[in-house]
Amino acid sequence: MMKIMKKSITDQLFSALKEEIIRQSIKAGEQINPREIAEQYGVSVMPVRDALTRLASFGLVTIRPRVGFFAREFTPTEIREIFEVRRLHEVYCMERYFDQIDRIELERIDKAMDAYEAHPTREAFDQVDEALHDLLIAASENRFLMETYNHVKDLIILIRHLDLGRIDYSHREHRQIVDAMLAGKKELALARLEQHLDNVRNSTLENIGAMEGLA
Amino acid sequence: MMKIMKKSITDQLFSALKEEIIRQSIKAGEQINPREIAEQYGVSVMPVRDALTRLASFGLVTIRPRVGFFAREFTPTEIREIFEVRRLHEVYCMERYFDQIDRIELERIDKAMDAYEAHPTREAFDQVDEALHDLLIAASENRFLMETYNHVKDLIILIRHLDLGRIDYSHREHRQIVDAMLAGKKELALARLEQHLDNVRNSTLENIGAMEGLA
Repeated sequence: MMKIMKKSITDQLFSALKEEIIRQSIKAGEQINPREIAEQYGVSVMPVRDALTRLASFGLVTIRPRVGFFAREFTPTEIREIFEVRRLHEVYCMERYFDQIDRIELERIDKAMDAYEAHPTREAFDQVDEALHDLLIAASENRFLMETYNHVKDLIILIRHLDLGRIDYSHREHRQIVDAMLAGKKELALARLEQHLDNVRNSTLENIGAMEGLA
Repeated sequence: MMKIMKKSITDQLFSALKEEIIRQSIKAGEQINPREIAEQYGVSVMPVRDALTRLASFGLVTIRPRVGFFAREFTPTEIREIFEVRRLHEVYCMERYFDQIDRIELERIDKAMDAYEAHPTREAFDQVDEALHDLLIAASENRFLMETYNHVKDLIILIRHLDLGRIDYSHREHRQIVDAMLAGKKELALARLEQHLDNVRNSTLENIGAMEGLA
């Protein structure tokens, strides 16, 4: 039987282009031509424009009227602001919903960290990173909180690729956060989470500074 | 000299349709026909579709694939969730940025409340309500925090129109919050803000229940 794809063309393009931007196959600052994208994906221009307009409302694409669509760039101030929103959401959820955090998923993440230690790859790290931070937000069971978090999450993933040298430190910090969570030590887990988020922010800012110094 | 409108047609339609939905001139649950809207505004269908797609990403419009666009409806759970996100943002900003709240704007709001008391109208109340809650978020000077807040703010405005009987109570609570802020009493202002937000949420939920009872 033929497989029916139920997602609309616009939804599929939205996801595909989002991945291209987040994983940096479309580079920050690059102009995006709707006609070229339409040809690439074998679709008409209208759903491409719809998808790009939606990406703009998520801050991943910049629209310059009468010029076109561009993949987003970030300033140090924007990075600081994005991390503040991230911290607000994650710390709130851990504090307020600590006892509702999914234990089975937490143990799965713990095992995924063992696997990462055996074979450390960028992809394995990214998966643990995303799963751990999502786990906290999911504990709220609040769809709108997940939406506002997701609004900055895509930006966080994008920024994470600017922070290449820190994986080992971040992995160790994730381990310490998960250990505290598994032991049911809320205050300790909270303190470690806050410290981790501040470290990642500072290291990202340093890398941005270093990159700008190279330009 | 001819006045040049610099906002794109899509941006203008986005704002116009948002107002129509928020102010309930397009009712919750109603189907929205892009061709009719295009005729009404004397534009082509493409920017109408762009605007509706963007409104969908803000949760004000629901897209049913192969059926069309609909103005959003709300369940009690959604109302609870929206208020949690609102509370998270407002309480955080008052707590963290109390000393950076714009004093001149606060005094302007205080006078606008006097004006409301002299001539109480729905519009005057709505303006004070929006200005007061925006003032807290603006103190953060964080554009992304304002974005995530705005994501639920449109929904809050929409929900506020479901809560018709509570204006007098809300006005009195706004007065008490502003008094505490003007006196520099942070803890008191925080406690009053939290109580106010919980009261508005509970009253909205009661009204929804009453409306459903009538249906």
